[in-house]
Amino acid sequence: MRKNYFPSVKGSPPPLRIQVERKVRFEETDPLGIVWHGRYASFFEDARTAAGEKYGFGYPDFEKNEVNAPIRILHTDFLIPLKFNETFIIEGRLHWTEAVRMNIDYLIWNAAGRLATTGYTVQVLLDKEDNLLLTPPPFFLEFREKWRSGGFQ
Amino acid sequence: MRKNYFPSVKGSPPPLRIQVERKVRFEETDPLGIVWHGRYASFFEDARTAAGEKYGFGYPDFEKNEVNAPIRILHTDFLIPLKFNETFIIEGRLHWTEAVRMNIDYLIWNAAGRLATTGYTVQVLLDKEDNLLLTPPPFFLEFREKWRSGGFQ
Amino acid sequence: MRKNYFPSVKGSPPPLRIQVERKVRFEETDPLGIVWHGRYASFFEDARTAAGEKYGFGYPDFEKNEVNAPIRILHTDFLIPLKFNETFIIEGRLHWTEAVRMNIDYLIWNAAGRLATTGYTVQVLLDKEDNLLLTPPPFFLEFREKWRSGGFQ
Amino acid sequence: MRKNYFPSVKGSPPPLRIQVERKVRFEETDPLGIVWHGRYASFFEDARTAAGEKYGFGYPDFEKNEVNAPIRILHTDFLIPLKFNETFIIEGRLHWTEAVRMNIDYLIWNAAGRLATTGYTVQVLLDKEDNLLLTPPPFFLEFREKWRSGGFQ
Repeated sequence: MRKNYFPSVKGSPPPLRIQVERKVRFEETDPLGIVWHGRYASFFEDARTAAGEKYGFGYPDFEKNEVNAPIRILHTDFLIPLKFNETFIIEGRLHWTEAVRMNIDYLIWNAAGRLATTGYTVQVLLDKEDNLLLTPPPFFLEFREKWRSGGFQ
Repeated sequence: MRKNYFPSVKGSPPPLRIQVERKVRFEETDPLGIVWHGRYASFFEDARTAAGEKYGFGYPDFEKNEVNAPIRILHTDFLIPLKFNETFIIEGRLHWTEAVRMNIDYLIWNAAGRLATTGYTVQVLLDKEDNLLLTPPPFFLEFREKWRSGGFQ
Repeated sequence: MRKNYFPSVKGSPPPLRIQVERKVRFEETDPLGIVWHGRYASFFEDARTAAGEKYGFGYPDFEKNEVNAPIRILHTDFLIPLKFNETFIIEGRLHWTEAVRMNIDYLIWNAAGRLATTGYTVQVLLDKEDNLLLTPPPFFLEFREKWRSGGFQ
Repeated sequence: MRKNYFPSVKGSPPPLRIQVERKVRFEETDPLGIVWHGRYASFFEDARTAAGEKYGFGYPDFEKNEVNAPIRILHTDFLIPLKFNETFIIEGRLHWTEAVRMNIDYLIWNAAGRLATTGYTVQVLLDKEDNLLLTPPPFFLEFREKWRSGGFQ
């Protein structure tokens, strides 16, 4: 049973999904032999970066359009600890919103295929003077239009 | 205006507080010149470790009593980014709860004295076989009794 | 032209080699937009871990045999900086030695195929009481015998 | 008995020194309960940053003068491991050289006052187009002149 961080709104397009694989490094584990809780931000970022690259909302896309997309909220729920050398899957899902923000949730599946961690990030868009964008910039409108019209399926 | 992650219950003792100072390292900043969002787990841990040492609920205390206190939830709200070489204050506050858990929230004040980041962690207690403790172990009961009776003031 | 950290001795078996691929993460880059120099220890460890797994001298092998293999020397020569999102190859080579130690050197090739970084680590073997092993433990002798006799080719 | 990474040349001014204190964080320790070897680059950087600030050859000084000072060599010799919560001293010493580079060595003293780690870094100077500076820029000449004439004593 997973948490529903971003309840879906009727009529909105399905989330954009990505899955990446990663293996726990020795340096990521703590004296208890499990991954230190602060490392999961890096795991989430792997999914976010891969999704950004696949769908066109990555760090290079924002930079080219002179927009920053800082993280405003990071939330993590730890269910089962990951261990040294364990291979795991990070699933990221960008959820539709009419607001000028990016709502992504994350599901980490451990080597046994069980849900080990969930979480989410919320990003806003800023111009180069760090002003909050209240209306989407053109490239982001285009990206959303493509998404809404099923162009990513 | 701060978020109230753990609303206080009438009649419960005031939170146990700590403040630690830290300075942003070069390696903690990203290509945008600000601290990467994933590093704040380390900032929070500095306050948590110092509070544990001061009040007796730190990692060594748990280990001595054969208890683990893994983090189940980590939440961070980013308000103002921290910059290279900036000196900041991390305030941690352990909030009273009747449950067998530790609810700590964090307030990060930047060099200008403004609230830069807030967040919280929730920890549960496990025995050495990773079973969830539903009743507090003796040392934790003692710690809470001292807290309730004003022994930390 | 590469540095020759461990000159080969005539008659000794060729090094055991591994290559792993990795991609630069956003969090690994600094305000100059390049990988912070301290992260390369993690890159080297990726090759060392993969080689240990392939050839049987990894952290789990040592642990099973109640031996620690701490790093005594870490050396890195930085030639060309790696950049965000760049895919690179880490080559690790375990060099033969009669001493009870592990001498590994590392070659990092950037996305353009140029040699970006070189370095080496030296590890010694300790028993569980942290005494330096002056003669190789049985499993390590076996490993070396297999190597010497060409069993890894 | 310490290693002499940068033998002193007769007639050259004494090294510029700094000492900083730091405490081992939980997240810096590995499953063996000791600091993971790759974290020492951060320890060295603490001393380097503090020395740069004190003597005027820090990251902000270089940036103001449109010079980069990337690290070309990082070397670490591990003698005694540091443990969780241990307080240690990092000593950094900038050694005089006629070359356009910065040669710094590091001595880490553990809580018992014993020499736990030594190492060094070598930095070169680059202009903003990443060309190696073969003659010192004016601000660096001034800094060296002040050093040579005893202005830092």
